[in-house]
Amino acid sequence: MKNVKVALLQMDVCEDVAKNLETAAGLIRQVAKDGADFAVLPEMFCCLYTSKSFVANKEPKGGRVYTALQNAAKENGVYLIGGSMPEAEGDRIYNTSFIFDRDGNQIGRHRKVHLFDIDVEGGQHFHESDTFTPGDSYTVYDTEFGKMGTEICFDIRFQELARLTALAGAQIIFIPAAFNMTTGPAHWKVHFRGRALDNQVFMCGCAPARDENGPYVSWGNSIITSPWGDVIDQLDEKPGILFRELDLDRVKAIRDQLPIMKNRRTDLYELRWK
Amino acid sequence: MKNVKVALLQMDVCEDVAKNLETAAGLIRQVAKDGADFAVLPEMFCCLYTSKSFVANKEPKGGRVYTALQNAAKENGVYLIGGSMPEAEGDRIYNTSFIFDRDGNQIGRHRKVHLFDIDVEGGQHFHESDTFTPGDSYTVYDTEFGKMGTEICFDIRFQELARLTALAGAQIIFIPAAFNMTTGPAHWKVHFRGRALDNQVFMCGCAPARDENGPYVSWGNSIITSPWGDVIDQLDEKPGILFRELDLDRVKAIRDQLPIMKNRRTDLYELRWK
Repeated sequence: MKNVKVALLQMDVCEDVAKNLETAAGLIRQVAKDGADFAVLPEMFCCLYTSKSFVANKEPKGGRVYTALQNAAKENGVYLIGGSMPEAEGDRIYNTSFIFDRDGNQIGRHRKVHLFDIDVEGGQHFHESDTFTPGDSYTVYDTEFGKMGTEICFDIRFQELARLTALAGAQIIFIPAAFNMTTGPAHWKVHFRGRALDNQVFMCGCAPARDENGPYVSWGNSIITSPWGDVIDQLDEKPGILFRELDLDRVKAIRDQLPIMKNRRTDLYELRWK
Repeated sequence: MKNVKVALLQMDVCEDVAKNLETAAGLIRQVAKDGADFAVLPEMFCCLYTSKSFVANKEPKGGRVYTALQNAAKENGVYLIGGSMPEAEGDRIYNTSFIFDRDGNQIGRHRKVHLFDIDVEGGQHFHESDTFTPGDSYTVYDTEFGKMGTEICFDIRFQELARLTALAGAQIIFIPAAFNMTTGPAHWKVHFRGRALDNQVFMCGCAPARDENGPYVSWGNSIITSPWGDVIDQLDEKPGILFRELDLDRVKAIRDQLPIMKNRRTDLYELRWK
């Protein structure tokens, strides 16, 4: 048994960045005390989910948000998937997840590759590409438990990214996300089950808690799915912590029983990063 | 509205090939009278699902099973996805689906690309590769309604095949299949929902009815899922017909609202047939 303790922090997010950092720091401290190896924050845990807020709160690597995450990882001795933040670099803004080890060293950085641009009839409209520049790589990083991966929210809709992340060795894919009241009930669970089953990995989705009065209403429902494709646990819409111990040996065991990752016909087709 | 009427024929399958052909012919006649454009038979609709039965009942293209399918398509004026059969060619056997147009012309042939080899602890064990040679292509064919695709059962577990089929233009992917009492409850629905959602196509899965006393117990539950990823309709385990009218305009409409097929980052990654 190779067990890893994962804590998804489904927190309230408000317009006050300092308050959000404080909330996150408190939750990280709490789950670290309870023995968490990995703490995971939601997409845009530090500011409201609006284009205006992204621009107003953009910060470079090394800024206030980055430093707060780094310190929280180091002070509490946990791996930290730092949700995501509007990262400024030159005149560009990215939707970025910084990932830190137990000493506060940055071991990964995922910039959302597929921006959230939808126009659902009678449902959700949003155009992240008005504000953000998309990232240009998948993200896998080494930990004491082996390789892990990260993508962000809308990325999960594109099967190629999770496949490439799993093929690169990720056993758990951590996904800071914020599905909404249209796409959440329709697609949140089926995507997390499907990607886990297809790639025979654990998938962890961490969302902000729902604020019915906020400018963007998050579906919540932070979730962990297994390499067998079932839901291990799922929160409701309220603030909460999803804390689970995951047995990484199940990845190999399930791949042996049901040879999806083994029996891909790579003699016939090829998925490659350009 | 571009509507196509699809009938999935979840039939009883027994060891008597002639009787199975008669059952299939009767069902095809019935749904054609009701206006079906496409009739779909289950995987191995003509013989029992055992390695011994595959070998005993193998037939070449143009044999008794093939001719019965061709005649049924022609006599009833329907497109026919001919489930699958053990196809003999030289000293090889394939798990093959022959597809015919309304005049009985063969317009497609899918040989199962991913053979069903599993060893689930406390569950299902089967090794198709002891008997079958795998196919070596994905399958898309032209109809008066546009392009359609076919894969067979275990093929659905490999995301690359459905993606390549959809990228080649298939709007509906017809899947003769026979999940079992281990994999059916665990994965049947999530795979059909997931592939439909990922590729924004209709997916139609047609299974044999369940025979609790047979050598291989089929999950049944023939299903149609939509480009939005929801279940349009699903049978239970008993013999039955799933007859639905599908609006093909939904494929484009949903792709416009939720740009998954459009916004794939083909500048970064490439899935190609070798």
